[in-house]
Amino acid sequence: MSKLIKIGLFGYGVVGQGVYQILSECKSIHTEIVKICALHPDKKRDISMDHFTFDKNDLLNNPEIELIVELIDDADAAFNILKEALEKGKNVVTSNKKMVAEHLQEIYDLQKSTGKSVLYEGSSCGSIPIIRTLEEYYDNEMLNSVSGIFNASSNYILTRVCGENKDYDLTVQRAQDLGLLESNPSLDIIGYDALYKLAIISAHAYGYFPEITDIVTHGIQNISRYDVQYAREKDVMIKQVAHVRKVGDNNICMFVLPQFIPLDNELTEVKLEDNAVVVEARFSQNHFLKGKGAGGFPTGSAVVSDISALSYDYQYAYKKKAQKTPISITHNVVIEVYLRYYDHKNLSHFNFNKINTEFKSDDFNYIIGEISLKSLREAQEKLNTADIFMAFTGEIVD
Amino acid sequence: MSKLIKIGLFGYGVVGQGVYQILSECKSIHTEIVKICALHPDKKRDISMDHFTFDKNDLLNNPEIELIVELIDDADAAFNILKEALEKGKNVVTSNKKMVAEHLQEIYDLQKSTGKSVLYEGSSCGSIPIIRTLEEYYDNEMLNSVSGIFNASSNYILTRVCGENKDYDLTVQRAQDLGLLESNPSLDIIGYDALYKLAIISAHAYGYFPEITDIVTHGIQNISRYDVQYAREKDVMIKQVAHVRKVGDNNICMFVLPQFIPLDNELTEVKLEDNAVVVEARFSQNHFLKGKGAGGFPTGSAVVSDISALSYDYQYAYKKKAQKTPISITHNVVIEVYLRYYDHKNLSHFNFNKINTEFKSDDFNYIIGEISLKSLREAQEKLNTADIFMAFTGEIVD
Repeated sequence: MSKLIKIGLFGYGVVGQGVYQILSECKSIHTEIVKICALHPDKKRDISMDHFTFDKNDLLNNPEIELIVELIDDADAAFNILKEALEKGKNVVTSNKKMVAEHLQEIYDLQKSTGKSVLYEGSSCGSIPIIRTLEEYYDNEMLNSVSGIFNASSNYILTRVCGENKDYDLTVQRAQDLGLLESNPSLDIIGYDALYKLAIISAHAYGYFPEITDIVTHGIQNISRYDVQYAREKDVMIKQVAHVRKVGDNNICMFVLPQFIPLDNELTEVKLEDNAVVVEARFSQNHFLKGKGAGGFPTGSAVVSDISALSYDYQYAYKKKAQKTPISITHNVVIEVYLRYYDHKNLSHFNFNKINTEFKSDDFNYIIGEISLKSLREAQEKLNTADIFMAFTGEIVD
Repeated sequence: MSKLIKIGLFGYGVVGQGVYQILSECKSIHTEIVKICALHPDKKRDISMDHFTFDKNDLLNNPEIELIVELIDDADAAFNILKEALEKGKNVVTSNKKMVAEHLQEIYDLQKSTGKSVLYEGSSCGSIPIIRTLEEYYDNEMLNSVSGIFNASSNYILTRVCGENKDYDLTVQRAQDLGLLESNPSLDIIGYDALYKLAIISAHAYGYFPEITDIVTHGIQNISRYDVQYAREKDVMIKQVAHVRKVGDNNICMFVLPQFIPLDNELTEVKLEDNAVVVEARFSQNHFLKGKGAGGFPTGSAVVSDISALSYDYQYAYKKKAQKTPISITHNVVIEVYLRYYDHKNLSHFNFNKINTEFKSDDFNYIIGEISLKSLREAQEKLNTADIFMAFTGEIVD
């Protein structure tokens, strides 16, 4: 039997309840949830109110609690909890991807300075054990790329809308009813949820802690029946795919875009709330990992796996960061994209190197052309707000 | 930089050469191959003969060598090397699935008594990090089953023969030319290679060390055009699938059989020398891992990952074995199978509970019926030798 771990739990939402139930059922892990800190004193709970407090200091100042499990929505509040917990000598397990992605360097530094551990397997791709696998299994591998479907709710929506021809708005509503969308659904739909996970994965795959604003991102918020129809005619599926890939010896490029996926590609079989990670490595070659990307039990199981790892004092070693050659991000990469637009002035925001195909009609227009990540990054605000839909064709030109 | 590990390498075949090259190219892992012990002094090598010895004692008695990497074919000789190495205070990394599967308890005991470590990620499913994932990530998960395609060469053959209608004998020859078949190809083709991997996986998924003879196994050696034709008519693919699954609270059942896989199942997308593992878990739900199941680099990368893990003194904890409730194997499980035969007397070896379909013709005959693993185990010798082809339909009846 492993040693008893006394836990202070922040958050009792979908994942918090999942973790609570897994720990209750699991006989092999020896834990005690001393107290749960929740936000709403008046909310009805499925367990006795004796378990709850509404004052974070009841957990952070309790010397008996050695581990803080942080599962709240608010990324800023989460970071403050993490920082205070570490400074007070407690380990932290979190599944807050936005918080981790935005504070990678500080979280790394805080672990160094306090000697305590922060684990966050549940932050990336739900139940898929990608962080630990990158850290422990690929520690000496030369990775060509890590890519995949990292956001469950946009994959759910695309499966219904693109695969089954369902209405977009009704599908978004259904995803919200199923609890698949984050409390701020726009983070999922405009691609930022996948972006945060990509940033975390890049830290463990390449030892590179990116600035969020350095990663080109476009979501599925404007997908139209014209785009779905185009994909169908070309025998491709539209999936939201995040990429980090090696460029030359010391650079990586990163982007999150809807992508046209040929029907014989394994990513087309990743449906609804499943996530998948494709690792392309020099020696072990291609790995494909698929699993549930959201939900209380799947994400909760990743959190519990981290809690268990702390029972034998596991810490991320950030092995790739310790390696000699520093990696930098580059935007000098040209990719081919499809850009659908209605209003011609929206086209002018994007500085294409070359246009390969041009289509105009009364209903909609599109071009297929070559554009650098540098130009896309400069147009990031328009990627978030203009009434356009862009998809990566899969072609990296240069 | 990690500490320098001085290695004695046994075997310089496909995997040995892969490991040698990966270690040469990998700047992040600090190793020195002190000497390579090979079998044939007269064989031409791609590196200087100064690296080689042909006397195992040059490695085992060298106090400078702290790690033995054992990559030879002969399972009995491999076990003797492993035992002697451990007793002389050296850690061992091996990819010899037959040796590990046949000596699980002794390897476990030897690690306990010597305090040294034996790692064998490369023994199971080539490059897929399944052993470490089961040990570290699923350590507290209640696994319903672990199954999948564990043998690269039979999958290569089935992809060609069943998926592309190629001739069986020519395909086997081609697989041998490609180096995909083990030196004793019958181990692959009659299912024993997958069986060994299943035994090892069961040790880490359930803490159960099975007797090899307790696992029902049937290979693809007798697959005929009638079977391929039958599968095509029924819109299924034939794959060689290994299963270990929970039965009730304290039992597991295990078998390796050709299996009819519906075309929409992800296993049909596992082609040629790829392997795949499907983990069904109570909380994290279904995971699907796919990667190269054979070859010098893919298997070599798993071996190098183990070497790297030893640089921070990693040992398997066999966590599931340490858990309270002991698990036993049961054969009181009834499954539905297709059995194709020519000679009616071959049917009489199998004690079916119930026959659901019966087909007779001048060319061939088959039945589809329900049979217990107990009856199949009693007929194991006939499963290996009789001119029949059996496939699991996917239905567990009871």
